[in-house]
Amino acid sequence: MASQGGSAMFDLVAELYPICRSITGRGVRETLRALSRFVPLTVVEVPSGLEVFDWTVPLEWNIRDAYIKDRSGTRIVDFNRSNLHVVSYSLPIRRTVGLAELKTHLHTDPLSRGSIPYRTSYYAPTWGFCLSQDQLDGMHDDEYEVCIDSTLSPGHLTYGEFLIKGRSSQEVLISTHICHPSLANDNLSGIAVATAVAQRLSEMDLRYSYRFLFIPGTIGSITWLALNHARLDRIKHGFVMSCVGDGGAPTYKQSRGGEAEIDRAWAYVLGQGGGEFRLRPFSPYGYDERQFCSPGINLPVGCFMRTPHGEFAEYHTSGDDLGFVRPASLRDSALKVMSVIDVLENNLAYVNQKPFCEPRLGKYDLYENVGGGNASDYRMALLWLLNMSDGAHSVLDIASRAGLPWETVKAALRSLEAAGLLRAVDAPALAAGAGAPGSWSASPVTVTSA
Amino acid sequence: MASQGGSAMFDLVAELYPICRSITGRGVRETLRALSRFVPLTVVEVPSGLEVFDWTVPLEWNIRDAYIKDRSGTRIVDFNRSNLHVVSYSLPIRRTVGLAELKTHLHTDPLSRGSIPYRTSYYAPTWGFCLSQDQLDGMHDDEYEVCIDSTLSPGHLTYGEFLIKGRSSQEVLISTHICHPSLANDNLSGIAVATAVAQRLSEMDLRYSYRFLFIPGTIGSITWLALNHARLDRIKHGFVMSCVGDGGAPTYKQSRGGEAEIDRAWAYVLGQGGGEFRLRPFSPYGYDERQFCSPGINLPVGCFMRTPHGEFAEYHTSGDDLGFVRPASLRDSALKVMSVIDVLENNLAYVNQKPFCEPRLGKYDLYENVGGGNASDYRMALLWLLNMSDGAHSVLDIASRAGLPWETVKAALRSLEAAGLLRAVDAPALAAGAGAPGSWSASPVTVTSA
Amino acid sequence: MASQGGSAMFDLVAELYPICRSITGRGVRETLRALSRFVPLTVVEVPSGLEVFDWTVPLEWNIRDAYIKDRSGTRIVDFNRSNLHVVSYSLPIRRTVGLAELKTHLHTDPLSRGSIPYRTSYYAPTWGFCLSQDQLDGMHDDEYEVCIDSTLSPGHLTYGEFLIKGRSSQEVLISTHICHPSLANDNLSGIAVATAVAQRLSEMDLRYSYRFLFIPGTIGSITWLALNHARLDRIKHGFVMSCVGDGGAPTYKQSRGGEAEIDRAWAYVLGQGGGEFRLRPFSPYGYDERQFCSPGINLPVGCFMRTPHGEFAEYHTSGDDLGFVRPASLRDSALKVMSVIDVLENNLAYVNQKPFCEPRLGKYDLYENVGGGNASDYRMALLWLLNMSDGAHSVLDIASRAGLPWETVKAALRSLEAAGLLRAVDAPALAAGAGAPGSWSASPVTVTSA
Repeated sequence: MASQGGSAMFDLVAELYPICRSITGRGVRETLRALSRFVPLTVVEVPSGLEVFDWTVPLEWNIRDAYIKDRSGTRIVDFNRSNLHVVSYSLPIRRTVGLAELKTHLHTDPLSRGSIPYRTSYYAPTWGFCLSQDQLDGMHDDEYEVCIDSTLSPGHLTYGEFLIKGRSSQEVLISTHICHPSLANDNLSGIAVATAVAQRLSEMDLRYSYRFLFIPGTIGSITWLALNHARLDRIKHGFVMSCVGDGGAPTYKQSRGGEAEIDRAWAYVLGQGGGEFRLRPFSPYGYDERQFCSPGINLPVGCFMRTPHGEFAEYHTSGDDLGFVRPASLRDSALKVMSVIDVLENNLAYVNQKPFCEPRLGKYDLYENVGGGNASDYRMALLWLLNMSDGAHSVLDIASRAGLPWETVKAALRSLEAAGLLRAVDAPALAAGAGAPGSWSASPVTVTSA
Repeated sequence: MASQGGSAMFDLVAELYPICRSITGRGVRETLRALSRFVPLTVVEVPSGLEVFDWTVPLEWNIRDAYIKDRSGTRIVDFNRSNLHVVSYSLPIRRTVGLAELKTHLHTDPLSRGSIPYRTSYYAPTWGFCLSQDQLDGMHDDEYEVCIDSTLSPGHLTYGEFLIKGRSSQEVLISTHICHPSLANDNLSGIAVATAVAQRLSEMDLRYSYRFLFIPGTIGSITWLALNHARLDRIKHGFVMSCVGDGGAPTYKQSRGGEAEIDRAWAYVLGQGGGEFRLRPFSPYGYDERQFCSPGINLPVGCFMRTPHGEFAEYHTSGDDLGFVRPASLRDSALKVMSVIDVLENNLAYVNQKPFCEPRLGKYDLYENVGGGNASDYRMALLWLLNMSDGAHSVLDIASRAGLPWETVKAALRSLEAAGLLRAVDAPALAAGAGAPGSWSASPVTVTSA
Repeated sequence: MASQGGSAMFDLVAELYPICRSITGRGVRETLRALSRFVPLTVVEVPSGLEVFDWTVPLEWNIRDAYIKDRSGTRIVDFNRSNLHVVSYSLPIRRTVGLAELKTHLHTDPLSRGSIPYRTSYYAPTWGFCLSQDQLDGMHDDEYEVCIDSTLSPGHLTYGEFLIKGRSSQEVLISTHICHPSLANDNLSGIAVATAVAQRLSEMDLRYSYRFLFIPGTIGSITWLALNHARLDRIKHGFVMSCVGDGGAPTYKQSRGGEAEIDRAWAYVLGQGGGEFRLRPFSPYGYDERQFCSPGINLPVGCFMRTPHGEFAEYHTSGDDLGFVRPASLRDSALKVMSVIDVLENNLAYVNQKPFCEPRLGKYDLYENVGGGNASDYRMALLWLLNMSDGAHSVLDIASRAGLPWETVKAALRSLEAAGLLRAVDAPALAAGAGAPGSWSASPVTVTSA
């Protein structure tokens, strides 16, 4: 899916766009079902009321219909036209309300008069509608008929998980949230790129195991972390993904420590990309890296975005629609992720087997590949790898210091290995067993295939 | 005194301005007597001849009158008009001197023709007058009557000390020199701000003890350090203060190591001030930080100034007068000092008691304080404190990294403590006894109340 | 030789310019013989076929004559006009060759139509000529008579070595390559400056021993390192020198670690020079620092240049001739080297013997040297040395932090030592025996005096 110029990923975004998702409910299940056409997701159902760290899994919320009718009976605000019209987790209501009271339940975005804002009220029991400022300005009747046909009752929080087993049980975690309704960039772009990457990795022989999470924001990652607390030491690298479909430059927000291998891999890959990019230091606001980087968890997990949340005008409004997401950006995001994964997969430390002076490259047929004149990137990669491979520097360290393209460094590395000039430092012994989600069956959690 | 828009501090500067101070003598005593109206200073008298490290406490110098009379008997240079006219520590003289010889004893500032320069000769026995270049150019008589009615004889070096006992015997040292005659910024501004701060701290409940020194420059701090050498490990933080009344931007010169807590506190407070400021690295030239930061002493003591010494044209001339010092600058300097002290007082490390993921702030009534939309400074302060409070980062570390205002960080800290979400790391056990100056009575030093 | 405005160094460059050098052969011997007029070089002859690390000492190459004659019998390309005309290590040939075949053996530099490029083929057996593009464009005959009167046969690789014994057996290594034919900057400038510096050091009382190498590039340094592998721990500092005669700004390329004492000494000396300069990070391409900084050798050896190789248009062409090298640049390069050596020689750590507060400089006649007003460089040097001399900071550390000129710092250091205020930290015990090259006589290597 990643290889078709982004159109397959865009098609998935378009397919998922109409679904009304929230942090629980049928929209999440429908979304996971769609994804399971591409990757064999494990779907986890966690019952309402389960305590997860300082939080409690909430009641499940579902909605069938909602509207505001004016005195003529016309639906002037209609859930069927946009699921953003209802504040997520609104309590059910059906009655006639005077305009003054109604206005206390209406939300607009005065900065973007034509857009419907996106609002939630997960933990304060209330109801509300979102509409454009223009719509609000047109409401002059004394009273309106209001209906929200929703249910809020014990059920489950649902998330999807997919583990690709590599040669090692050490894991790379890739997490994306699935709790936003019809918002294309801030939700669906991350879902589509993660799915495409997961699909691609499933076909590969991998060093690391890769764990993909498709989870509701905040409560979803908290729930997952609580259920998997004892197994977190398997996670060696990770990143959250969101807002990866807009036309902006790629952005990587560093993990809490700022100097983890994943941080350096992203900095190198974006730096080699040739275009504009942003590196942001960690801050405790944003997506689920907030939870992964909380002080008691403290995983090396950053966040990959294009334009960061809150920095584009369409953020959390109906303007974040299918027109805001570009196939080419989805494709570029997927390629960047694959590049980072390739760096992680190959980032071993090596020891030069002929460390006294330079080896005579010609003896190994490594010199002929090179033209005369100035040293080519390839020859420089050979020289940098030989010079820095003292067991204390990884390939990423060397590539970053040399400032050379990854493919060139990798090609030179393979040649030097084949010539017997470099030998990998032994990786530490790996723990057995790769932690399949199925082993949770004694818990209150229900695990099924989507 | 600090709270009245700076006018009370300015009044103190104006009161002290006419007094002829030097490194010893009646002017210093008169100055300390004036300060003791505001704070209960301990006055220490150290006898001439006492050896203090590589130095010796000098003879005491006093002066009643001095002038140069021309042939008509007119006082063309008159100590009563400006005490800068006499080189400090001038030997007594009364005789008629030819112009050529006299000129070898006259000092002017050719760069500022109308100003009287400030000169001293503490350790080379001589006499001299300072006058403006314009005055010198008008001297055409063959000979002049010269009189310096001074005495240089065994006596004492005098300084003032004031200890405010806090809950801990660990001390913050604030030192200012009191040896300059009628110079307003380079002497009196520091004295006035230190006095106002001492007065304010006397009314407060404090964690640290605060030791204020009002001492002659160089020989005074050397004497104090020699007499207190065995007790210096109580000093945890400190700074010298001088030139804090002019209209320039605030300046902090770092301590010898450059990364002490006091250095970081000043950098943070000035950085948060919103205006221009200067951070200067340590150099072994300047005020008494030279002694406090000598290699055998090596205390974490910086220097707070506005325009640094030597960088304003009025420096060490009669131009550094009452018109050069501004009440608003005095007030801003006192506020900056109080901010730094507030940072030090509150700069503990905390441990997040709910370190696994973010706590649900709503449960603690910490979420309601916050409006929607972008995260406010207050919510960001909550999140930063929770995220970084792993016991290894102090509040100052967190506030500096977050780039948030101190009052916001402190308010968030108090809320999180009250909610039980943060708990301070236990401070190390504190040594008993706070080192009152009175315990020195077996030494040759006389200690009295001013 | 270094002191005569650079003209003596230039004369040596001019004398050596016509000689046809390569990595072996008579040209190298003739060059070393010329140098031995100035310094008593030890000449080492290493037999062809000796294995040195991953390399083998090559056959010895010599050449008497070479030309291309056109049909009229005119030498249109003539070795006697420029030894660059023959690809170094060309096999002997004497026959008539058609133009098409001949062209596969001709090398030009299309970017600089009038210049003859410099080419070598040490390890691929072939023959070839270098000529200007203009010359090539004028060749229209069907066939040409080609002659290279060379020999390639078992012999020796020759290098020169010169050890100046200092008080310590610890060594400073200064290495320059001697394998380029008529190229003035990229070869002869380094040879001339190294010779002048060696001559000057021979007359001095030195702390360190100084080892000068005049060696063929790459294979020469590899051979020397292989023969001296067991003794490399004596080398405490070092640098390669090349391209030090052109009009460009001085450049220092750091050693592999980047923070060795030699790196900091060069950074300080160039920074104090007052003019433009370049500091370059290590890279594994360049001159023999490639070998000295290989991971198994890893010596603190940088490279001193003016305009770096490959960054001037004349590089490796006949344009790098006597007109490209300036006496003033040679002189400045020699002076910079002497400054760096002076820093190394004097770079001890000291301990302030009066560390409690500043000593009273007047007591030691150290204050009188100073005028009034702002602190002079000399007084600042006194204060910096006193403040930072706690045994943990070397003189170079202090001079670098103070940003003061070396001569001033050294003068202040001598005054403080004489006054008993500073005492050097004891240097570590030094190993006996200075490793004279003569002790290699049991090896296949022949050591003679030139």
